[in-house]
Amino acid sequence: MSNTTGINAYAVLQAGGPFQPYRVRVGALGATEVELDVLYCGICHSDLSMIENEWGLSQYPMIAGHEVIGRVAATGRQVKRFAPGAIVGLGWNSGYCEICHLCRMGDRNLCREARFTVLTNGGFADKVRADVNSLVAIPDGVDLVSAGPLLCGGITIFNPLLQFDIKPTDRVAVIGIGGLGHLAVMFLNAWGCEVTAFTSSVYKRRDALALGAHNTLNSLDPAEIEAADSHFDFILSTVNVNLDWDLYIQALKPKGRLHFVGVVVDPIQCTLLPMILGQRTMSASPVGSPATMETMLDFCARHRIRPRVEVYPMHQIEAAFQHLKSGKANYRVVLSREGDTPD
Amino acid sequence: MSNTTGINAYAVLQAGGPFQPYRVRVGALGATEVELDVLYCGICHSDLSMIENEWGLSQYPMIAGHEVIGRVAATGRQVKRFAPGAIVGLGWNSGYCEICHLCRMGDRNLCREARFTVLTNGGFADKVRADVNSLVAIPDGVDLVSAGPLLCGGITIFNPLLQFDIKPTDRVAVIGIGGLGHLAVMFLNAWGCEVTAFTSSVYKRRDALALGAHNTLNSLDPAEIEAADSHFDFILSTVNVNLDWDLYIQALKPKGRLHFVGVVVDPIQCTLLPMILGQRTMSASPVGSPATMETMLDFCARHRIRPRVEVYPMHQIEAAFQHLKSGKANYRVVLSREGDTPD
Repeated sequence: MSNTTGINAYAVLQAGGPFQPYRVRVGALGATEVELDVLYCGICHSDLSMIENEWGLSQYPMIAGHEVIGRVAATGRQVKRFAPGAIVGLGWNSGYCEICHLCRMGDRNLCREARFTVLTNGGFADKVRADVNSLVAIPDGVDLVSAGPLLCGGITIFNPLLQFDIKPTDRVAVIGIGGLGHLAVMFLNAWGCEVTAFTSSVYKRRDALALGAHNTLNSLDPAEIEAADSHFDFILSTVNVNLDWDLYIQALKPKGRLHFVGVVVDPIQCTLLPMILGQRTMSASPVGSPATMETMLDFCARHRIRPRVEVYPMHQIEAAFQHLKSGKANYRVVLSREGDTPD
Repeated sequence: MSNTTGINAYAVLQAGGPFQPYRVRVGALGATEVELDVLYCGICHSDLSMIENEWGLSQYPMIAGHEVIGRVAATGRQVKRFAPGAIVGLGWNSGYCEICHLCRMGDRNLCREARFTVLTNGGFADKVRADVNSLVAIPDGVDLVSAGPLLCGGITIFNPLLQFDIKPTDRVAVIGIGGLGHLAVMFLNAWGCEVTAFTSSVYKRRDALALGAHNTLNSLDPAEIEAADSHFDFILSTVNVNLDWDLYIQALKPKGRLHFVGVVVDPIQCTLLPMILGQRTMSASPVGSPATMETMLDFCARHRIRPRVEVYPMHQIEAAFQHLKSGKANYRVVLSREGDTPD
């Protein structure tokens, strides 16, 4: 199959939007590139952050979308891994330098030259192109409609479980039950851990228990957090606001770890002495490598873990984003090209 | 040998001192206790902090001193490990609960009921008593005069090398060349690491190089720290003041760790995004367990590592503390009972 000469996308032309139909002319496919027909594309909170230039990294026009499930349409001449027709996934990064120490060690997700899918033309489009090394095969048993959010939200949660060797005997807490947090509860339950959800919402408490949490604690009640003194091996924060981190550090067992995957833009602050006395750790991480994404997808297929999603046809992208911004998404939003009508 | 009925010590009767001769009457030795004749006792900065009640934990009268090299004088009836005459060491803790999960896992240093030597009558005395499980044998090849500072300062530095699996291939930096930092340089050189010393003092730079550092960087020059971008696997902070931690975090390789062993009383602050992008970690730890102290002493004997000390007779304790407070100690101060004249 030969590749296309043009992509039909929804782009924002300036910070904040709105989305508009946008056609990109493209040339010959690079030797290691793959062109996908987009089937589904999740909307991640980081799409919103990039569209609004919250991190100061954005360029316009921007075709965002980085939780892509697609079908291989064409492959560059050096591509051996995927044949046309294969179902694959694309996440936050659409390519890596492939020559730095980190890439060669397998830590492509930490490559400084990693390209952001949303800056190389992302998945809010009929087609998307990416380097073959950024793509992962979607195994049988993974539901395609809901799988997109695994490729950014999911891997962000899953990767630290491997990186920090979380054990099935560990007591783990998740701060924030939302797009990332609800996946964390499912992963950790399947991992064998004792799972506690920190949330202030009554209906999210109920959801967390239904998704596999064994306990919930009210994140707005310091007394409840204090009562969990020295309880947790691992606390995973998915929120993007500052909390009283000293309270959570005190809830860690000696040698415990408070790990951040939610971006808090303001500086974070904590008191050192409780960290010293309990040999406690704070850390943070981004998405995972494509190889780790494959490990995650295999785990999801075996445990029938799928993100809870709400699906919009892609041409309703503006409405889908408004829903995300309202904070009412339950819990991830996916755009579908099935039955999508071009504008 | 039967135990004494009284200990002749130097105590402070109120926060800040001064030291005065002080006799403590003591009863029969407990079943698991050991009584030592003090030979040498190091002075640690934490003695000063406790004497001045900087951490709000102090009780008076206080007999401080917790870097004790002593000779076993008497043993309780259940003590099997040491016979009278044995040369042993005593550090920050003089006993543990022995029943909590941490004690039973070997992490006695993290036991919440661990007793502080300076609060159970420490080593600024002719005799000291401690639970047998807090004592370590001093192996042949360890110089007794200078060994005391290994038992608190040394183990505080050595323990994280084991806890966090520091590798001989790692690039490691030490912030602050003083009592702890000069030991860190020696340990890390013997460990096989690339060793960099952060210090602002010209003479300490020279010392650090002589002690085994391969490089030095000026801790007061942000440009020098920035130039070390993503260089270090591990940065060990021994200072007790806040620095611009973001600068040091940026000097960590991806997956690197900034580790605190110096107590900073004010809250510490950092920016999360560089930690997220590089999967970086911050952590902290106290002293190590007695078993880890034995591992350290074996390592010191093999590599002929000894603290650089200045020795005062014990009755000059007031002068010795003034020297410590002046910041001019080179690098640790030890009180000797040899040739000591009672006041």
